[in-house]
Amino acid sequence: MTQSTLVVSAHAGDFVWRAGGAIALAAARGERVTVVCLSYGERGESAEAWRQGRTLEEIKALRRAEAEQAAAALGAGDIRFLDAGDYPLRETPELHDELVKIYREVVPTVVLTHPAEDPYNGDHPAACRMALQARVLAQAIGYPAPGEPLGAPPVFFFEPHQPEMSGFIPQVLLDITEVFESKRKAMECLPAQKHLWDYYTDLAVRRGVQLKRNAGPNLGLPHKTYGEAYMRPYPQVTAVLS
Amino acid sequence: MTQSTLVVSAHAGDFVWRAGGAIALAAARGERVTVVCLSYGERGESAEAWRQGRTLEEIKALRRAEAEQAAAALGAGDIRFLDAGDYPLRETPELHDELVKIYREVVPTVVLTHPAEDPYNGDHPAACRMALQARVLAQAIGYPAPGEPLGAPPVFFFEPHQPEMSGFIPQVLLDITEVFESKRKAMECLPAQKHLWDYYTDLAVRRGVQLKRNAGPNLGLPHKTYGEAYMRPYPQVTAVLS
Amino acid sequence: MTQSTLVVSAHAGDFVWRAGGAIALAAARGERVTVVCLSYGERGESAEAWRQGRTLEEIKALRRAEAEQAAAALGAGDIRFLDAGDYPLRETPELHDELVKIYREVVPTVVLTHPAEDPYNGDHPAACRMALQARVLAQAIGYPAPGEPLGAPPVFFFEPHQPEMSGFIPQVLLDITEVFESKRKAMECLPAQKHLWDYYTDLAVRRGVQLKRNAGPNLGLPHKTYGEAYMRPYPQVTAVLS
Amino acid sequence: MTQSTLVVSAHAGDFVWRAGGAIALAAARGERVTVVCLSYGERGESAEAWRQGRTLEEIKALRRAEAEQAAAALGAGDIRFLDAGDYPLRETPELHDELVKIYREVVPTVVLTHPAEDPYNGDHPAACRMALQARVLAQAIGYPAPGEPLGAPPVFFFEPHQPEMSGFIPQVLLDITEVFESKRKAMECLPAQKHLWDYYTDLAVRRGVQLKRNAGPNLGLPHKTYGEAYMRPYPQVTAVLS
Amino acid sequence: MTQSTLVVSAHAGDFVWRAGGAIALAAARGERVTVVCLSYGERGESAEAWRQGRTLEEIKALRRAEAEQAAAALGAGDIRFLDAGDYPLRETPELHDELVKIYREVVPTVVLTHPAEDPYNGDHPAACRMALQARVLAQAIGYPAPGEPLGAPPVFFFEPHQPEMSGFIPQVLLDITEVFESKRKAMECLPAQKHLWDYYTDLAVRRGVQLKRNAGPNLGLPHKTYGEAYMRPYPQVTAVLS
Amino acid sequence: MTQSTLVVSAHAGDFVWRAGGAIALAAARGERVTVVCLSYGERGESAEAWRQGRTLEEIKALRRAEAEQAAAALGAGDIRFLDAGDYPLRETPELHDELVKIYREVVPTVVLTHPAEDPYNGDHPAACRMALQARVLAQAIGYPAPGEPLGAPPVFFFEPHQPEMSGFIPQVLLDITEVFESKRKAMECLPAQKHLWDYYTDLAVRRGVQLKRNAGPNLGLPHKTYGEAYMRPYPQVTAVLS
Repeated sequence: MTQSTLVVSAHAGDFVWRAGGAIALAAARGERVTVVCLSYGERGESAEAWRQGRTLEEIKALRRAEAEQAAAALGAGDIRFLDAGDYPLRETPELHDELVKIYREVVPTVVLTHPAEDPYNGDHPAACRMALQARVLAQAIGYPAPGEPLGAPPVFFFEPHQPEMSGFIPQVLLDITEVFESKRKAMECLPAQKHLWDYYTDLAVRRGVQLKRNAGPNLGLPHKTYGEAYMRPYPQVTAVLS
Repeated sequence: MTQSTLVVSAHAGDFVWRAGGAIALAAARGERVTVVCLSYGERGESAEAWRQGRTLEEIKALRRAEAEQAAAALGAGDIRFLDAGDYPLRETPELHDELVKIYREVVPTVVLTHPAEDPYNGDHPAACRMALQARVLAQAIGYPAPGEPLGAPPVFFFEPHQPEMSGFIPQVLLDITEVFESKRKAMECLPAQKHLWDYYTDLAVRRGVQLKRNAGPNLGLPHKTYGEAYMRPYPQVTAVLS
Repeated sequence: MTQSTLVVSAHAGDFVWRAGGAIALAAARGERVTVVCLSYGERGESAEAWRQGRTLEEIKALRRAEAEQAAAALGAGDIRFLDAGDYPLRETPELHDELVKIYREVVPTVVLTHPAEDPYNGDHPAACRMALQARVLAQAIGYPAPGEPLGAPPVFFFEPHQPEMSGFIPQVLLDITEVFESKRKAMECLPAQKHLWDYYTDLAVRRGVQLKRNAGPNLGLPHKTYGEAYMRPYPQVTAVLS
Repeated sequence: MTQSTLVVSAHAGDFVWRAGGAIALAAARGERVTVVCLSYGERGESAEAWRQGRTLEEIKALRRAEAEQAAAALGAGDIRFLDAGDYPLRETPELHDELVKIYREVVPTVVLTHPAEDPYNGDHPAACRMALQARVLAQAIGYPAPGEPLGAPPVFFFEPHQPEMSGFIPQVLLDITEVFESKRKAMECLPAQKHLWDYYTDLAVRRGVQLKRNAGPNLGLPHKTYGEAYMRPYPQVTAVLS
Repeated sequence: MTQSTLVVSAHAGDFVWRAGGAIALAAARGERVTVVCLSYGERGESAEAWRQGRTLEEIKALRRAEAEQAAAALGAGDIRFLDAGDYPLRETPELHDELVKIYREVVPTVVLTHPAEDPYNGDHPAACRMALQARVLAQAIGYPAPGEPLGAPPVFFFEPHQPEMSGFIPQVLLDITEVFESKRKAMECLPAQKHLWDYYTDLAVRRGVQLKRNAGPNLGLPHKTYGEAYMRPYPQVTAVLS
Repeated sequence: MTQSTLVVSAHAGDFVWRAGGAIALAAARGERVTVVCLSYGERGESAEAWRQGRTLEEIKALRRAEAEQAAAALGAGDIRFLDAGDYPLRETPELHDELVKIYREVVPTVVLTHPAEDPYNGDHPAACRMALQARVLAQAIGYPAPGEPLGAPPVFFFEPHQPEMSGFIPQVLLDITEVFESKRKAMECLPAQKHLWDYYTDLAVRRGVQLKRNAGPNLGLPHKTYGEAYMRPYPQVTAVLS
């Protein structure tokens, strides 16, 4: 079966800061990766451009171009923009339906999205609710959309900007050391949020320290390990405890 | 590195009902498995024998023999009895120390024990606390016990008898289909708790149904899948999200 | 005062699996029982019929007929179908209003509905939210609907399909032994979900075991006791602790 | 079967403020009531007497006499003092054992004790842990104490002084209107804590307001209803939902 | 910088019972206070007027006049009524937008609103969600509303009617002793809810007792201290721990 | 009233990493600061020294000297070592009593200690339990220790090494910018844990970013703000909401 990762993010840059390592790993393994940006983050996450007096359309175009470059830097060729608006991103039946169609088209074996809480940004939980709702709808044989009913792919919530305030407890620590350089390059495709480059590099170091701290005696990890943290809303299914 | 599973259970039968599948799987893979029974369950889980008028020592001997047979049925040759007493099982510095020595001796790569809460049986959380405390102590280079300081092996809490009342949320569903027959045989080595044979068979079926429900499109699972549920008190460390 | 039970369920079969025992007990006591099915479960819970190539309208008619038979088997003559659609079932002002009218008409002394969480099926929490919201609206003298303002009847959440994943902790264990045969017959009126007949029979056995385990020294319970589990979102009001 | 209520409290006055209504109701029904005071509250809850320069033994005698009068005012003739010391009250094997013997002697059908958390007073959770632990031990046939193994009586946690800070959520609201006058008289037997007389009268009024607010359409409650709030650590077992 | 308090409440009377002390304190310090009533509480909290046969418009006018008098009694001259309807109060994009404009106009340094949960009244959580969502939107430079992007003012949730059932844990105890007389007068401007005058006076006494209990050795508090309780959804920012 | 800060930490270095900023701020304001180290961290946090073959006594002396230097660098002259042993640090009546005496001697107006949970280090929760228990005991007039009964000083939990895994949610963000240089110097007094110097500098930067993010429009914060995060187990008492 083809491995296929689907990333559902609220704004154009979210997938880079929060899941860039997972995306680059999957791409490096030659797997399919699809990134869906529900909005461009044009109102809430483009302060610099607004201060420069750009128009809404110019800002959208700018964010789109940057996100495409970042996706390419991660090795993810398939990035889609639903242009649903941000601040606020609103949950609608139409967006549910668009997402169901994407689920049935790309048949994800892994889904990455925002966690269910974020008191600093209501768009993130809205994206989460839509990603989860569409995943369930896509499983129903009676839902009127092309393609086969979906199996139930595992879901991973990526880390929010203020994890402790968002009920985020790391349940999975992913080793992204071998692709961290690509992640850093992807971050650098987003000049409007330059203050986040070092912030998310530091975070990767910290998650790497924790990863080693929880890795047990088994792994020969390098001195400097980079990590990303995830939560699982559904149980892990496995044939081996490890 | 040698794979090594350490099971720390409060009473002589606990490892069978709750983790028999995981033990049989590890044994079937040719890995080391060590089962530690902190007590025989002589007071709290041997009602039948007490009704028959057996003495305390007779009951301990009986439970020991049954547990040894059950461990053998699962393929786990190394079973140890610390005879610390039950109802109540008391947490003591001496038991901590005995467990530290075992950790340093068997160098587990996986630890299985009771979850931290069980309002129906205080011995189970006591066993959990001791298993976790000893695991941390064994990591300290300054702790005076033979052997090397331990790495931090992953821990899995097995399922309590009344999961919802014990804060137990399945975070890992383990497919035990291929060894379920061994688990059933091990259960049948415990005639004093015959009423649990079907109870835990039904549970394995139910966890199997949930396993299939969460398995995504990837797995070609058999019609009748058996499962065991576990919680993780520490994050999973991985190189691949799945 | 007339005892009156109102059941608000998302799909046509939910009331059978989850609350069939409570319904049969109330009917057996000669009390009023009203079952409201917000949808037929036509898209999400009728996989067999879709595979047979039935049309949407055929499936709705089929589900309706089966649900009516099941209600009759439980002794509940009054079953209503609001045909609001499923997968997704959407919360609307119109549905709130329809439910307020039903509350004021049947004046429930007990309300049964889905719990507030279910990560596997968004229709269930939607039904819960509507049942609770309408219950509060019906209490307001200024709400424009026929009938008197409602008192605040106790609410019971029935058990979801995956209780531990839905934050479901049994707070009430209802002894349904004397009506279990009726519940089984009602389940057998739903051939499309035949795989659930034994699943929910096993669940009734398990909840019965727990019921006996929590029943104290007072009750002379039969060897095989069947149970159903419920949660209470509001405190119990009583004149005697027991 | 004889109804028997066992109250396990940390200090000599606790049973009055927190469970006086339940005790008076049971006594008024002619049932057995046993109050166990683990300590006299001599160090932590007798500030006035210390300021007057009384000795420790004088204070214990004073508290004992007052508690006996309060128990009598509630109709509970059987009150026992284990004199285990307070501030801190320490959990010991000996106290567990004394409590097991009491459980097996009085065979409670209802147990009342402190809740598991109280950040303002560590003696209260200690009393709770001992009451729960002894209840479980008393159920084990192999536990060496006179009498028969106990069934599992329901447990109710009474309300702590600062409920919201102690994780206390009212799950049961008990109507104590008909015995409130006795509860007030019992409170007035405790002159050292006179500031609490009105405080707990106000609390009874507030819990009474909530009781009416949750009582549904069924009850013809008086204008001024008094209540006490309780939590249940174990599920309610019942034959009727109400 | 000018201190400015913004109160967002669901119904016309809420700000009095729950935050009257905080409002009076701010007004007494000469600071700006703006009270926004999303509805008049015309359907859900005006039972008396409905029983008297008043029309909807009469009731709205009555509630408005009373609320204006209460605001004046607290010293808050600026009170606004958005007339969005109650029972239910519905969250809409238009209300979000109106609130964003108010945020940008009054530039609050403190925001007071309802907590996120209230199982007895869905309008309160709806008001909370809108107050929080608008606060975040007002911070986005790209949001199309007059004025400057907002800084992130601290938010305080005031106490709901049934705190323990609404997940309300007092995190801040505000000493309102010096303005309590004004709060009582403001309460007395609301004759339709006369039964709440004493209820909320008693609550102020109880919160005052807890305030003294948590005040440490520093404060010379008066014998009778009145208090109000609040929660913080965001962390406190400070230069001194105290 | 004299301001007095009491810090209760498990091991000799804890107060530096976790509360160095708060200590330096209090010292800079000329207030009394007392640091209590329950152990030297000789077994669990001195890996380097053990690898060098030092004896237990040498290691204790080394840790003591370093901690004294670090305290001096923060401006805290009063540091005490109870030498209670680590890995494990055991809760005992004797330690409770020693701490009560210190509470009554230094009469803290602020208490800093570890949070209640830490799955990576059982000594930290043990220190927390003892600090809290002794604080309550010291309030009892009847507790036999010199000095006056304590008022109830506010408590702050400082941040554990893995906050998200320890239930740590920042409730207070303390601006330590002006003393950060001292904190860094104090950290550099602990050469055995050199890998933590940058780790805790990065943490201070991150907490500083969050501090600015939650500071509202009021503060003119510097470009680079350093912070420390704390939790409050008891409510804040205040006369002004801010």
